[in-house]
Amino acid sequence: MPTLRLALAQVNPVVGDLAGNAALLRGAARAAAAAGAGLVLTPELGLTGYPPEDLVFRRSFVAASQAALRGLAGDLAADGLADLPVVVGYLDADGGAGLPARRRNAAALLHGGRVVARYFKHHLPNYGVFDEGRYFTPGDVLTVVRLPVGGAAVDVALTVCEDLWQAGGPFAVARTAGVGLVVSINASPFEQDKDDLRLPLVARRAAEAGAPVAYVNAVGGQDELVFDGDSMIVAADGALLARAPRFADHLLVHDLTLPAATDDPAQVPLVAPPGAALVVHRVAVTGPARAGGAGTAEGGVADRLDGTAQVWRALVVGLRDYVDKNRFPSVILGLSGGIDSSVVAALAVDALGPDRVHGVSMPSRYSSAHSRDDAADLAARTGCAYRVAPIQEMVDQFLAHLSLSGLAVENLQARVRGVLLMSLSNSEGHLVLTTGNKSELAVGYSTLYGDSVGGFNPLKDVPKTLVWELARWRNADAAARGEVPPVPENAITKPPSAELRPDQRDSDSLPEYDVLDAILAGYVDGDAGRAELVAAGHDAALVDRVLGLVDSAEYKRRQSAPGTKISMKAFGRDRRLPITNRFRER
Amino acid sequence: MPTLRLALAQVNPVVGDLAGNAALLRGAARAAAAAGAGLVLTPELGLTGYPPEDLVFRRSFVAASQAALRGLAGDLAADGLADLPVVVGYLDADGGAGLPARRRNAAALLHGGRVVARYFKHHLPNYGVFDEGRYFTPGDVLTVVRLPVGGAAVDVALTVCEDLWQAGGPFAVARTAGVGLVVSINASPFEQDKDDLRLPLVARRAAEAGAPVAYVNAVGGQDELVFDGDSMIVAADGALLARAPRFADHLLVHDLTLPAATDDPAQVPLVAPPGAALVVHRVAVTGPARAGGAGTAEGGVADRLDGTAQVWRALVVGLRDYVDKNRFPSVILGLSGGIDSSVVAALAVDALGPDRVHGVSMPSRYSSAHSRDDAADLAARTGCAYRVAPIQEMVDQFLAHLSLSGLAVENLQARVRGVLLMSLSNSEGHLVLTTGNKSELAVGYSTLYGDSVGGFNPLKDVPKTLVWELARWRNADAAARGEVPPVPENAITKPPSAELRPDQRDSDSLPEYDVLDAILAGYVDGDAGRAELVAAGHDAALVDRVLGLVDSAEYKRRQSAPGTKISMKAFGRDRRLPITNRFRER
Repeated sequence: MPTLRLALAQVNPVVGDLAGNAALLRGAARAAAAAGAGLVLTPELGLTGYPPEDLVFRRSFVAASQAALRGLAGDLAADGLADLPVVVGYLDADGGAGLPARRRNAAALLHGGRVVARYFKHHLPNYGVFDEGRYFTPGDVLTVVRLPVGGAAVDVALTVCEDLWQAGGPFAVARTAGVGLVVSINASPFEQDKDDLRLPLVARRAAEAGAPVAYVNAVGGQDELVFDGDSMIVAADGALLARAPRFADHLLVHDLTLPAATDDPAQVPLVAPPGAALVVHRVAVTGPARAGGAGTAEGGVADRLDGTAQVWRALVVGLRDYVDKNRFPSVILGLSGGIDSSVVAALAVDALGPDRVHGVSMPSRYSSAHSRDDAADLAARTGCAYRVAPIQEMVDQFLAHLSLSGLAVENLQARVRGVLLMSLSNSEGHLVLTTGNKSELAVGYSTLYGDSVGGFNPLKDVPKTLVWELARWRNADAAARGEVPPVPENAITKPPSAELRPDQRDSDSLPEYDVLDAILAGYVDGDAGRAELVAAGHDAALVDRVLGLVDSAEYKRRQSAPGTKISMKAFGRDRRLPITNRFRER
Repeated sequence: MPTLRLALAQVNPVVGDLAGNAALLRGAARAAAAAGAGLVLTPELGLTGYPPEDLVFRRSFVAASQAALRGLAGDLAADGLADLPVVVGYLDADGGAGLPARRRNAAALLHGGRVVARYFKHHLPNYGVFDEGRYFTPGDVLTVVRLPVGGAAVDVALTVCEDLWQAGGPFAVARTAGVGLVVSINASPFEQDKDDLRLPLVARRAAEAGAPVAYVNAVGGQDELVFDGDSMIVAADGALLARAPRFADHLLVHDLTLPAATDDPAQVPLVAPPGAALVVHRVAVTGPARAGGAGTAEGGVADRLDGTAQVWRALVVGLRDYVDKNRFPSVILGLSGGIDSSVVAALAVDALGPDRVHGVSMPSRYSSAHSRDDAADLAARTGCAYRVAPIQEMVDQFLAHLSLSGLAVENLQARVRGVLLMSLSNSEGHLVLTTGNKSELAVGYSTLYGDSVGGFNPLKDVPKTLVWELARWRNADAAARGEVPPVPENAITKPPSAELRPDQRDSDSLPEYDVLDAILAGYVDGDAGRAELVAAGHDAALVDRVLGLVDSAEYKRRQSAPGTKISMKAFGRDRRLPITNRFRER
């Protein structure tokens, strides 16, 4: 049986950067060729980046994607890689003359300087963060490519992402078509513990296809999403053969011994195999087979990350790529000495290095001495830039002109801080980071245009209890490596306070965070109603109180800055609620 | 042939307010009964409001919708209306035991205190402002209800909204089923001149069905959408029989003479008619027929509105319902003396009355005397509350603490105004209105967290040239009615300026607005690319300049307040672009 050296290029594209992404894929193909690969796989919509959203509706963007694909095929040939088949995800469109274009989430096989075969994604996810039903027309043909491998040939089926999550789809047809390998190119976002789902899923599809599956995923942040890599090769019997690390660019190179194709593809008509709903389109790659690489390639299986470590990595990568892909030189944030801003500062220093992180302490008359000390301590521990900008005189000037009391005075302090940070952003070019956690945002415990000011919020989808856990994990990890733990112990242990009035505590206004987060997990992440929450053992009065807070905070939450997703069910783009909404659980 | 008195209830539901909406529909049925109606039609998802968005995923909400439907059937019977068939749009779900629920955009026919028949929408729009592919499973059965009318019976087919926009769908099947009437219940949002599309469309479907079509639409604002009513009855030959006014609650009552059903429905199997893809489900309404109303009912055809008048009405209704449905007592806005804030104030006074509108002049050292005069004049003309709150001392306090220059100083003034308005909002309970027009927002000519502060922006989707046109139209309309024109002439005629530095003019930074708006219409609303815009006759250098401004303003625009939509292609929810996006037209 022939041996095919596969290269899975786990790369980090930028949405809209067709030239940059083509260069990225070209570089991956060169590296794969240097490693002796006979087939290179790259992620879903890797040429356009994912998700391109309404860019898909621009005719000029579709044409640019198609042109970039042809250009890449030519460039690969110019690099001496004409005989190296490369699978590329791109945006395509077809349709009859005079008809509206059908836009396609497509995979192409490039070979000999040309586009040899293409496949249109069959299953278009339209849930959670996905809106592909809005953008694409589903394909209904399975493309099988006959690749020359050594002196023989191997039949390879192409699939894209969601095709993998559906039983009885292209993978079942691939079995009837008798393929030797199924390729699955993906742009699959991080969710907590999603890697625990992926391997069994790929194994199920490999069993369904009766063939190994090569699963390649993108890596890196794009707005609210983080792609976590986790590319892998799984045998037909479900055995994990190789697996890339998560959250890192990687080229996974691995030798696979595959059954040689024996039938004559020219004899196989382009019709559905018995019992299958899909047409199979067979394409033979002609021309000389690429010489196999020397020796043996073993991709290896990367170490797993534990639950907290993976969240930390996701937040770091999401923040890093938001800043870098949008070309911000640096970030700035208010340092209150509290846990949230301390964790955001530590994340930012991990993502960008201390020189690109600017902390500002903005004490008012209600700021405690320990808060100022903790903020300075955080800055000293992480090495970020640090300055103190007291706000009281500016606050007093507003108070002299306005007759304010109570909540309006509390909010005013937060808003003066917002103005201050935005002024520094305008003057010095920093992106402002917001630091409100998911629990606060859920119940509206924040000031609109105050602490909600900023372009990116790493904690948007992180409940308060997980913020503490992250701080403890990061400190312990530093200590284990003999480094200075970044988060001051006092920031972790002291009772949380907004410090907007004397002796204020979060617990004056909110339930304890462990109780609050458990109810929020059910109501927000689980879409559970009041009755279900009470049946699950939560105190009925507390459930009513929390649900009331969440319902009345919907509007405010809509205004908060984009941030990083760590689960599918979360605040933000993937949770779309009417602002005007009178539904109440009771 | 029997005569059926139809009542089309063009009502204004609130999303999530199941009890309130049920009461609204119950009241409409009572009014219809008083008018002698034999069949009452109410809008799509009228029981839940439209669009319910991710509320649809709450199991408790689905159950509440189903319970509210049953409750309404009982309440109608309790009102003595058991014999009056009422068509109600609601959220339903079905699915086998142990299977995930299939959520349905459903229409029910209530009669005899029960749900007699139901229909699940076939065509689920998933474009523009619509995301129904995310929420619902499409139906594949056409429901035909045999209604007793006088001594005879009439077969009535039920359809929902988008079913109307697709040829060869339920309307074609209705023809093969030989129905006497097709009902179409809708939640169809306002677009400029959409009424010019609706009538020909309904006429085409009536021809396809070979039967009259009764089209009922919702009315009123919901977040960024405005439903404009325009309910109508069209004969099989395309003749317009009756048409409701737009933008107003209305009960359209009209007598229709219809062919009596002659075949025996018990003999018609529940299978697809020849050539049709859909199953027809026939339901006979049993029990006594409701006595026909006395005399003759003619619904009449409402006067049309011209282009500018309809936009004004849409903006007024959108603003009114956002404020009222969210239970804000009043609104507050900054009055600069410029055209944008003047038009917003005039809209707000039309929507809410002068007592609920609070204008604030917030002059800085760069504010001209004419600006202050024009702001005061606007307040005097409209009768809104008015106060002056100079900002210079607060600005100076920031400047004393920060070393700022150029754009940062300009932005600071706008942000101090934002803090001031939010403080007044907190203290006095007003909703802050934002006044940036679509042209400014498109090119980023606004201050993030400055003039973009606010909960609702009526001009979000109104280009600057249309803002002027609206002002002139409203003034002329007032003059024609012998009233005081609300917008000071000087606000319309003076060159626009942000007045954030000495002698500043919009034209220092932007092309003239007529040129700018034409390019924006192509690029933003038309998804045209650079080459298309240049081919359309726009100056190439100017196109490049405008496209560069729009592309770099994407992020800022994402942060702006929700506002009213006046077209489908617009900024906001229906235009979804990645923030991180490097695609450039050249």
